[in-house]
Amino acid sequence: MKGNIFYAQSGGVTPVINATAAGVIKAFQKNKRLFGKLYVGKNGILGALKEELIDISTEDNSQLKLLKQTPGGAFGSCRLKLNDFNKSKRDFERIYNVFKKHNIRYFFYNGGGDSQDTTNKISKFFKEKGYLLICIGLPKTIDNDLPITDNCPGFGSVAKYIATSTLEASLDVKSMSETSTKVFILEVMGRHAGWLAASSGAIKENAGDPPHIILFPEIFFDQKAFLKQVKKIIDKFGYCVIVTSEGIRKKGNKFLSDSGLKDSFGHAQLGGVAPVLSNMIMNKLKYKVHWAVSDYLQRAARHIASEVDVDQAYQLGIEAIEYAKNKISDVMLTIRDDSKDNVYKWSISHTSLNKVANVEKMLPKRFIKSNGFEITKPCKNYILNLIKGEDYPSYSFGYPKYAKLKCKIINKKLKPYKL
Amino acid sequence: MKGNIFYAQSGGVTPVINATAAGVIKAFQKNKRLFGKLYVGKNGILGALKEELIDISTEDNSQLKLLKQTPGGAFGSCRLKLNDFNKSKRDFERIYNVFKKHNIRYFFYNGGGDSQDTTNKISKFFKEKGYLLICIGLPKTIDNDLPITDNCPGFGSVAKYIATSTLEASLDVKSMSETSTKVFILEVMGRHAGWLAASSGAIKENAGDPPHIILFPEIFFDQKAFLKQVKKIIDKFGYCVIVTSEGIRKKGNKFLSDSGLKDSFGHAQLGGVAPVLSNMIMNKLKYKVHWAVSDYLQRAARHIASEVDVDQAYQLGIEAIEYAKNKISDVMLTIRDDSKDNVYKWSISHTSLNKVANVEKMLPKRFIKSNGFEITKPCKNYILNLIKGEDYPSYSFGYPKYAKLKCKIINKKLKPYKL
Repeated sequence: MKGNIFYAQSGGVTPVINATAAGVIKAFQKNKRLFGKLYVGKNGILGALKEELIDISTEDNSQLKLLKQTPGGAFGSCRLKLNDFNKSKRDFERIYNVFKKHNIRYFFYNGGGDSQDTTNKISKFFKEKGYLLICIGLPKTIDNDLPITDNCPGFGSVAKYIATSTLEASLDVKSMSETSTKVFILEVMGRHAGWLAASSGAIKENAGDPPHIILFPEIFFDQKAFLKQVKKIIDKFGYCVIVTSEGIRKKGNKFLSDSGLKDSFGHAQLGGVAPVLSNMIMNKLKYKVHWAVSDYLQRAARHIASEVDVDQAYQLGIEAIEYAKNKISDVMLTIRDDSKDNVYKWSISHTSLNKVANVEKMLPKRFIKSNGFEITKPCKNYILNLIKGEDYPSYSFGYPKYAKLKCKIINKKLKPYKL
Repeated sequence: MKGNIFYAQSGGVTPVINATAAGVIKAFQKNKRLFGKLYVGKNGILGALKEELIDISTEDNSQLKLLKQTPGGAFGSCRLKLNDFNKSKRDFERIYNVFKKHNIRYFFYNGGGDSQDTTNKISKFFKEKGYLLICIGLPKTIDNDLPITDNCPGFGSVAKYIATSTLEASLDVKSMSETSTKVFILEVMGRHAGWLAASSGAIKENAGDPPHIILFPEIFFDQKAFLKQVKKIIDKFGYCVIVTSEGIRKKGNKFLSDSGLKDSFGHAQLGGVAPVLSNMIMNKLKYKVHWAVSDYLQRAARHIASEVDVDQAYQLGIEAIEYAKNKISDVMLTIRDDSKDNVYKWSISHTSLNKVANVEKMLPKRFIKSNGFEITKPCKNYILNLIKGEDYPSYSFGYPKYAKLKCKIINKKLKPYKL
């Protein structure tokens, strides 16, 4: 009997994680004779635990065709961690029972660092049980913080969104700066790694061009140096554009966003480093400031996806089926930089899951200028490669056409499981 | 001697105000034999006061060609008001002197309500002086709050951005809602009128689709009813998407965004109604919330401009020259809805400047559903007409190619003016 495949999406979603799903589906349909069913877990690994499996063949083909251009996680994702073997033993047993019952022989887990660790642990657990399960990790994270792979699918599109949005908002504040707003602050994602904030620097063509100040979580925030730089920039150029990672910290490791905003009831106000910086500038330097927090808008902005990013995400899905055909297990697929003569080229490769687990790739020092507020030329070139090309979704009625899946669960064969 | 034209951009900029400038330039170049020079005021009316005139013929044609696809105000805008005749008498005299010295016989002022009022007053002042000046107001405002014109250029593109961003972020939060974030709040512009918040409702195809709650400045905010609605939505659909105008107010006219956020120094935290709502939901209902404030990103998002909007903005510029040729003065150009059999058609018309000054067009009652949280079908249809079509800018290096003008000031003929 041919084995079934289980694919699931995990952790924070991206504009192109569904492109990877689309690649898996496309290659699966081409190789139907080799496999049984393609099941997708509803809400990531929760789908395995709750035996909530979606049979991809029950979805409309017209909607599946839209999957490649649809942001978010079309089958649901989850934040559930299964990292601790001892604590989660019961959960691993449950997954084993579900997979055995449904003859699942291939496990594709599409996620970031934690998810790769889960894949690794599941692989080890099934080996102990003597049950052949091909385990393949598919990378995904807008944070671009997975090791070994040259970049992570999702990052390029969000980087393109941030670069474009910074450029556009800079033109706006520049227009107004003579008589009104002089400072614009954009807050982007990145709790630990500054890749997304860095991506705004890709638009800088000449000295003096925005963004004038980038704040990285890798560099401790120094209020005095920051305010001095803001003043210097405004004196010189008349306006100042700042892009900040949500995760910037003061010495002592305290997040700046936690630094004391309270509502009228005295409750701490969570999140939002942009308003904290804005207040600081208004109070100390007396400039008018505007700020934006892009939050999910950046992470879901499929309308301005990078073509390179979509291609890579899709190809990863295609290759997952190739690896499964060849029974290659315990790997995370990677994107390799094969550039030659300054022309960006890439291919799909792989690495051992053991090497990936629990390693976070920060922005390297050589990518940040010595003033701590700008990116270097090598960093710019790295980002420009990944934001290249436009892969627009189709539109109807003036807004993008995104897939609407039924996500119908197949009949359950096991008793309900208490999480 | 042929008269010169003075064109200027005023007030908050938009993704398409430069398309109007591009239309003026294009039509001017075609009709060169009828006019002298085309001057653009640097930073709006400030350019007239400071005698800072940009001669359009000194700009590179390659950059002028990019103007139609460039957001912001390429020549600078300003927030300066010249509404009070008596207070600003000196300023009007100065403008008269500058225009006379430079033989300016056509005044095109591209702005919102305040700017139309300024145009009207300048026209009256020049008439008193017995100086022939053709005065034409060109509408512009993302707020869509100018009267008589069926809609305002700028609104359609920002509406498209908001509709698309809401759709995308909704897919994101829906993916995560089983184990993580259940509520997403998007704050959009709109101090007095709810047009932009309303535009998010255009994506709703079926009951239950996001956005689930829209908060309009036209409706007083009722915390109890709001929280009840959030809970109801989450119980029913598992997640809740909220789009709020920055300008929502409690009874007693107090802006919700001013309701008590303080930083660690006790300074009032200005702006940001989304974090206030987020805190309210987290504290009262204990749901995990994400929020975004789109601020300038929405107002500058030329990368997702509406084709209808760009066409209208451009055509207004073309028509300004036609009106000037025909010596029609004291008008604001308008966009007329000529729809027939449910197919949207439009044309450029005009109205008297007297009728426009100081009238703000709010979202009509018939556009808001009786529950106060949704838009009606006529409102949806109105918005869908205006967000139709994609007018993408060209890209190089992965980000949009936007015009870089020299904005070189011509030689001054008068003494400096003290503002």
